[in-house]
Amino acid sequence: MLILMKADASRADLEAVKERIRELGFTPNEIPGASRVAIGITGNEGPLDPGLFARLEGIAEAVPVSRPWKLVSREVKPDDTLVAGRFGGKRFGIIAGPCAVESREQMGVAAQAVKQAGAHFLRGGAFKPRTSPYSFQGLKEDGLKILAEAREATGLPIVTEVMDTRDVELVARYADVLQVGARNMQNFALLEAVGQQPKPVMLKRGLSATIQEFLMAAEYIVKQGKYDVLLCERGIRTFETMTRNTMDLGSIPLIKRLTHLPIIVDPSHGTGDAKSVPAMARAAVALGADGLMIEVHPNPAKALSDGPQSLTPDAFAEVMGQIKAIASVVGLEI
Amino acid sequence: MLILMKADASRADLEAVKERIRELGFTPNEIPGASRVAIGITGNEGPLDPGLFARLEGIAEAVPVSRPWKLVSREVKPDDTLVAGRFGGKRFGIIAGPCAVESREQMGVAAQAVKQAGAHFLRGGAFKPRTSPYSFQGLKEDGLKILAEAREATGLPIVTEVMDTRDVELVARYADVLQVGARNMQNFALLEAVGQQPKPVMLKRGLSATIQEFLMAAEYIVKQGKYDVLLCERGIRTFETMTRNTMDLGSIPLIKRLTHLPIIVDPSHGTGDAKSVPAMARAAVALGADGLMIEVHPNPAKALSDGPQSLTPDAFAEVMGQIKAIASVVGLEI
Amino acid sequence: MLILMKADASRADLEAVKERIRELGFTPNEIPGASRVAIGITGNEGPLDPGLFARLEGIAEAVPVSRPWKLVSREVKPDDTLVAGRFGGKRFGIIAGPCAVESREQMGVAAQAVKQAGAHFLRGGAFKPRTSPYSFQGLKEDGLKILAEAREATGLPIVTEVMDTRDVELVARYADVLQVGARNMQNFALLEAVGQQPKPVMLKRGLSATIQEFLMAAEYIVKQGKYDVLLCERGIRTFETMTRNTMDLGSIPLIKRLTHLPIIVDPSHGTGDAKSVPAMARAAVALGADGLMIEVHPNPAKALSDGPQSLTPDAFAEVMGQIKAIASVVGLEI
Amino acid sequence: MLILMKADASRADLEAVKERIRELGFTPNEIPGASRVAIGITGNEGPLDPGLFARLEGIAEAVPVSRPWKLVSREVKPDDTLVAGRFGGKRFGIIAGPCAVESREQMGVAAQAVKQAGAHFLRGGAFKPRTSPYSFQGLKEDGLKILAEAREATGLPIVTEVMDTRDVELVARYADVLQVGARNMQNFALLEAVGQQPKPVMLKRGLSATIQEFLMAAEYIVKQGKYDVLLCERGIRTFETMTRNTMDLGSIPLIKRLTHLPIIVDPSHGTGDAKSVPAMARAAVALGADGLMIEVHPNPAKALSDGPQSLTPDAFAEVMGQIKAIASVVGLEI
Repeated sequence: MLILMKADASRADLEAVKERIRELGFTPNEIPGASRVAIGITGNEGPLDPGLFARLEGIAEAVPVSRPWKLVSREVKPDDTLVAGRFGGKRFGIIAGPCAVESREQMGVAAQAVKQAGAHFLRGGAFKPRTSPYSFQGLKEDGLKILAEAREATGLPIVTEVMDTRDVELVARYADVLQVGARNMQNFALLEAVGQQPKPVMLKRGLSATIQEFLMAAEYIVKQGKYDVLLCERGIRTFETMTRNTMDLGSIPLIKRLTHLPIIVDPSHGTGDAKSVPAMARAAVALGADGLMIEVHPNPAKALSDGPQSLTPDAFAEVMGQIKAIASVVGLEI
Repeated sequence: MLILMKADASRADLEAVKERIRELGFTPNEIPGASRVAIGITGNEGPLDPGLFARLEGIAEAVPVSRPWKLVSREVKPDDTLVAGRFGGKRFGIIAGPCAVESREQMGVAAQAVKQAGAHFLRGGAFKPRTSPYSFQGLKEDGLKILAEAREATGLPIVTEVMDTRDVELVARYADVLQVGARNMQNFALLEAVGQQPKPVMLKRGLSATIQEFLMAAEYIVKQGKYDVLLCERGIRTFETMTRNTMDLGSIPLIKRLTHLPIIVDPSHGTGDAKSVPAMARAAVALGADGLMIEVHPNPAKALSDGPQSLTPDAFAEVMGQIKAIASVVGLEI
Repeated sequence: MLILMKADASRADLEAVKERIRELGFTPNEIPGASRVAIGITGNEGPLDPGLFARLEGIAEAVPVSRPWKLVSREVKPDDTLVAGRFGGKRFGIIAGPCAVESREQMGVAAQAVKQAGAHFLRGGAFKPRTSPYSFQGLKEDGLKILAEAREATGLPIVTEVMDTRDVELVARYADVLQVGARNMQNFALLEAVGQQPKPVMLKRGLSATIQEFLMAAEYIVKQGKYDVLLCERGIRTFETMTRNTMDLGSIPLIKRLTHLPIIVDPSHGTGDAKSVPAMARAAVALGADGLMIEVHPNPAKALSDGPQSLTPDAFAEVMGQIKAIASVVGLEI
Repeated sequence: MLILMKADASRADLEAVKERIRELGFTPNEIPGASRVAIGITGNEGPLDPGLFARLEGIAEAVPVSRPWKLVSREVKPDDTLVAGRFGGKRFGIIAGPCAVESREQMGVAAQAVKQAGAHFLRGGAFKPRTSPYSFQGLKEDGLKILAEAREATGLPIVTEVMDTRDVELVARYADVLQVGARNMQNFALLEAVGQQPKPVMLKRGLSATIQEFLMAAEYIVKQGKYDVLLCERGIRTFETMTRNTMDLGSIPLIKRLTHLPIIVDPSHGTGDAKSVPAMARAAVALGADGLMIEVHPNPAKALSDGPQSLTPDAFAEVMGQIKAIASVVGLEI
């Protein structure tokens, strides 16, 4: 943090600011200038809140000079982190499967279909966050068991969501990757809890989360010692209503410069429309994301949730062909 | 739900839609028309997802004909609900206090100040949701004990936040009203948990929550049998960056028509700027909200969080005078 | 502008920055520091674009140290500007009337009604900006003539919109105040043109305009020598769809601190719902805005545009009573 | 428009609605139902505003059953429109050049560079819309002359912006394609004026324009008889501030389904960051847009506007190579 004093700040104002910095346990470094003075702060472990100084006299502006994140930063770790052996560096991973686990039969068909088409991970929600308490809420532990059977049958590792700190241990027993959903991106208790269990974590960006908040949420997990964190861009909320969400693909190249963690794209939730998923999946590969998560359902017309955005197995196989062709052009390995 | 068929839909299309409705356990009611047919659906307990029909042939549009909420609706309960004996009907309640519980001394001074100025409830965060894991996270149970002491000293009941399902019992033991914060508005596990404990709940609107999602979140709580739910508008996230959030005061008259639950306004978080708080507090009374939550700190310049938006005790006393004058004009009782 | 150099910037980097500043015609002022150097820029008439320096080596950050606006700033002119003899200082003005001029009869009834209820200005659109080219586009010059007749009959000065630089002279011949609509807030040619005609101007905030852009648009007008500029907050576009727009009332106290120009509130467009207009009108007075613009139509059910948000004459008269009562409490004169 | 009556609507309510429809000059078609009646409206040339009926008794909902646009719709014209001989169908066009025309030398170098790298059109702003009246506003007619010289030297047709109806004739004399900028997307007078001159038009999406408003703006131009309209997605305004705008690539596949007009992508304004442009340009090709507009400046560090987002000629040549490789995979011709 650099504190710029006003041109007409008095010596007493300056000393009060320095005293405040010392009270907070840090060191003030006076930087004299031609027309006004700045004060650099050192000794702080993490970034400081400019608000801490907002009410003092004589301050023109408090300028944060370093990014607020630390462990997830590329400055700290310049090399790409490879998560779950599949996402990051030149490796492009594909997660596919239905939105919700509905039955043994549905998961069985879906799992075989996505495996045959070349997916690396199987997804399916056993605990479902739903806007309405009257919507289907998932099969819970029964759903986890069905997922485990599908893994046994196909060899595909499974990705599934956890919504409650009390369920982390249960879900971690079944899942290969734990998903923290968009609505829980700033459920800080959950972030700490998934940071303390042994499996990799996939963190979805919140609907109104800035890139900075997204990285800070990842920092909560990594701070627990867990570096296996996969980020997922799934669309943000804007004024546009003809698409379910607005995919923020422009954030991907920026995030890749800011952090060593891999980031994948979820065009199914991002667009909410199966007809737009193939185009957005191709775009994700072309721009250099680290993977895709795509909803595939054996019979989208009868899906209990998110039918309109789910691909049929045939459509998914076609998309896989397209993205492999683009991957070879941009030097990614699928 | 009303399903409008396309003008050129075939009899087979129509029958397929009716079959789908029966599969879901509901009853299709064919409504013949001059140029095309509509199908009404009955037998559903809650509202249906239009997506359930999105992939069938021959459908022009699926039109929801009832609101998705139910228990919180004014149609179900036309009379205002009075929460915590203080919010709702003609009663306008004031919650005041510091953002975070920092120390026994700080809370003691703050509690006396807000009581003297006429507040009805004391606020203070013991568990603090912070964007950065490096920011002050609250005193946790020690903070709850300090709050309880302040209640004993002043007689003011206390409002404090709970962030984790595992802490609900603990917080409910100390608090008079449990707060669910904006970031947890769609933490559905937490909503159900606070719905099952005995104390009233204050639910803050999420930063990107629509009015419909806000009411559905309240529905999650009320569905547990808890009708003592106080809504709180605290600003939404928009493109504007000169104010911390954008207060959506225009939602207040609409929400009051839609639900019987009371709604209060939090101008401190809504504007992020102590200088704008008095004007917004006056506006909240004038438009007919059911109360206010205002941050007051004995020494805002030294606050560990949200100093820039906290009022001094003197400024708060002045605001109380202004809002009482307006309340008498609009027929509210403070 | 203050340019903060990186800690490891070389002397050559520093000299290149200073050279760049000189090339632009300004003066670099080196401000040496303990660990790094800052360069202040002087000699620039208006604010500089940080982008001018973004590609140079060795720069950590370019910090604007002054607001980009100038003539509209309170720092330049601390006293409130009174516009059209009615808006600003302690004077609270009311503009009322139908969205569009539809006929001599409609305007005649509307004008008498709003005059009787105590409005100070009559509004009505002769040139109508409509999203669809198939919607009613206004009566154009015939509408202006009808407005002039209504002024003659009631004595109320008229406010009406101009949408095209080619029409400025025509509209200025009839109108007492020229309105620049939200969609044209950054139609810079129009801003300059209305700045060069003799009548006061009302500038509406654009749907996605930041407060800074709003003030900069006003600066375009004032820079032509016209200080008679009335700002109007009419709601911004957000993700919320249950209200037509999101009224940003929290911007009002901030804007009043930043500029000497008066600002009024348009709750009709802001909420899009006649049922919410009275509450929002009361709020606008309570928080200290300088006036209101309210849509009133003799028969809202038959209005050619914006019927759902228009008040009946009776409802408007009732609102006038409410806002007068609040005005007397907060010390405004209606 | 289909009007759904409430279940308890009276015969008198129904007749009043039908009378209102007849008053508007259209034909009501009663569609009887089991529990309630719907009324279809025919005879209207364009779509109707639901607000026309909002205040009548007994109406449950007014449902628009057709899109509000007409001439730009794929239903009306299923085949792709080819604009300027280069954009649409399988033809992918590239527009490149500096943000602003600064001098004969700058344009000369830029024009040769983008031609050599394979661009099809040269861009450059002679009239510049700037947020601040103190920023560089463009060379105006001198700029147009410099553009014409660059065209003569390279053979590249030129694209340049027009901001004022009074300048349309002047700009059309020099330009090969007239650009309507984002801030003027709903400057309806300008849309009509460019629809009446002989050159093709490129229409940029407004910062807060919905897809529907974007298409309706194009409809204004096409309604004048001009079908040569090229759409351009350039990012929308959201809460995210780390990127200059949020590129809405998810709108592209949807827009291509809705309209026959071609749509290109402007990653320079969309991201505001030269480092992200190559990735977004690759994405645009992969998802099937009809072209790209990319800012290229001989010396971005000294650009008078938009330097941070401009590519150097070398970087642009590299991007051209990447997008050609992807175009061949997805079957587009560059």
